[in-house]
Amino acid sequence: MAPIVEMINIIDDEESISSSSSDEVCLSNVANSDTHGENSPYFAGWKAYDENPYNEIDNPSGVIQMGLAENQVSFDLLEQGSEQHSSKATTINNNNSSGTGKGNNNISSFRETALYQDYHGLLSFRHAMASFMEEIRGGRAKFDPNRIVLTAGATAANELLTFILANPGDALLVPTPYYPGFDRDLRWRTGVQIVAIHCDSSNNFQVTTQALEDAYKRAQGKNMKVRGVLITNPSNPLGATIQRETLEEIFDFVTSKNIHLVSDEIYSGSVFSSSEFTSIAQVLQARDYKGADRVHIVYSLSKDLASQGSELALSTHTMTKW
Amino acid sequence: MAPIVEMINIIDDEESISSSSSDEVCLSNVANSDTHGENSPYFAGWKAYDENPYNEIDNPSGVIQMGLAENQVSFDLLEQGSEQHSSKATTINNNNSSGTGKGNNNISSFRETALYQDYHGLLSFRHAMASFMEEIRGGRAKFDPNRIVLTAGATAANELLTFILANPGDALLVPTPYYPGFDRDLRWRTGVQIVAIHCDSSNNFQVTTQALEDAYKRAQGKNMKVRGVLITNPSNPLGATIQRETLEEIFDFVTSKNIHLVSDEIYSGSVFSSSEFTSIAQVLQARDYKGADRVHIVYSLSKDLASQGSELALSTHTMTKW
Repeated sequence: MAPIVEMINIIDDEESISSSSSDEVCLSNVANSDTHGENSPYFAGWKAYDENPYNEIDNPSGVIQMGLAENQVSFDLLEQGSEQHSSKATTINNNNSSGTGKGNNNISSFRETALYQDYHGLLSFRHAMASFMEEIRGGRAKFDPNRIVLTAGATAANELLTFILANPGDALLVPTPYYPGFDRDLRWRTGVQIVAIHCDSSNNFQVTTQALEDAYKRAQGKNMKVRGVLITNPSNPLGATIQRETLEEIFDFVTSKNIHLVSDEIYSGSVFSSSEFTSIAQVLQARDYKGADRVHIVYSLSKDLASQGSELALSTHTMTKW
Repeated sequence: MAPIVEMINIIDDEESISSSSSDEVCLSNVANSDTHGENSPYFAGWKAYDENPYNEIDNPSGVIQMGLAENQVSFDLLEQGSEQHSSKATTINNNNSSGTGKGNNNISSFRETALYQDYHGLLSFRHAMASFMEEIRGGRAKFDPNRIVLTAGATAANELLTFILANPGDALLVPTPYYPGFDRDLRWRTGVQIVAIHCDSSNNFQVTTQALEDAYKRAQGKNMKVRGVLITNPSNPLGATIQRETLEEIFDFVTSKNIHLVSDEIYSGSVFSSSEFTSIAQVLQARDYKGADRVHIVYSLSKDLASQGSELALSTHTMTKW
């Protein structure tokens, strides 16, 4: 449950598959499966409500949500309890950059957050995350809150991406040395394999096109289908940042192979100055976001804001894609 | 992300497998896989630290944790920020039934929760959950906090259990009608199948041994290995509770087949009185917990405490087993 933030828009991904052209990057069988049930009558009811919600005055002919088990009968008791114990109990307040003006009162914001929300995470929080991620990149990268998805930690984000991008037995290429937790996080439940991109001290462990090609061929030699490259930038465990020209080479490589690129940028705020770090988002921006569909950025507040174990951090993890 | 609470002790499960006797219930390949990496040198270092942590005065020859990326250098800034914005920002306080006496101050408890914690969830919170679950069962069931695992919602708990108990292509038997989300939650990423236990109105949709046997045979007829029965008690969508004698029959059935029983009791506090609801925990208690290893209870605060969509609820979801 190591907290992190990530970037992908799952819905968009699925849509892009259904209208697939030959140069679109593939997603996994899990991502393309109908088992998500979104086409079922159950979720059709949800969508009908979302599109046309009943309101006694404004929309009396709208849809009433009868298929969602939201317990609203105890709010008065919970609000009383929250008020009485506010100095020693957890309080949630949703006052942030959304500009709604709501959330100035802990009680009303409790009710606001107590009901089911967008599964991608609170939009107001995603706005705040996009803004913060732009700030720690010195304003040189833009993030779209609508393409940010919150997850319960970066571990969950990286695993989710692996489920979406690769099938069991497929390979992700990861530069060495890498965070040993990846052997668990990327492989355990997904059945996906990691193939090492061998890096060495002769060039400060920077990834080269030759090392990428070697890893790709090694995976093919083991009859694995390579689905993507996963980099950590700044590197865990090296602490080094990846040079812009190296990022360009990696992006050109994944483009030429028509595979994905996951850039885990969890340490992006832990550099001596923002100018020392180049995000893959800056490379995409310079190329007018051409090929951005294949790029997924992971981020979290856990490292940069020193809240790695906090339950608070659970609400700060994000996944986005352009 | 529908919030829930659950019950299993994964580590115990794995240990029991390695010392397997013939009547022990099997776990999945994922549960038995070495891909969790716990045997790696990386985690060996963690364990060495956990068992013998360095302390300048009390344990100067202890182990110093150098393998965990906990950012502690910004605590002073975060504490200042937390203090200045405490009226409009999220505050976390860990003051509860653990009796540690800590957590009376939001600032110190922030630091306490900001570091990595037990992946099973805060022990103090698991104590509180066990106590609350006993209370809403009228004191007729006991729960061991050490066998409770917190998850990010009941959906995550049910999916995690499915990963642990069944392999892709295996079957779980589920009484009809069932919560339509199960078609997604139990199947999507796991590849596990649901086989219906057909229930009908003639006996108020209570599960019968005959219906269980029929479902089991139907799964076998499709060459599926049946790994368990999953019940919701009280039932979603029926709202009915399962009679004690029916619970006894279901437990005898899973025992005779040497399979698992998942009891999703998320609505256990939403009954008119606690005497109307019998938890599978009461059946186990009456049998001196014989065969309790095969039983997994799911619970959450989301329904009973009306906090289904709250980020707060993310910290209230639990998994336990006896």
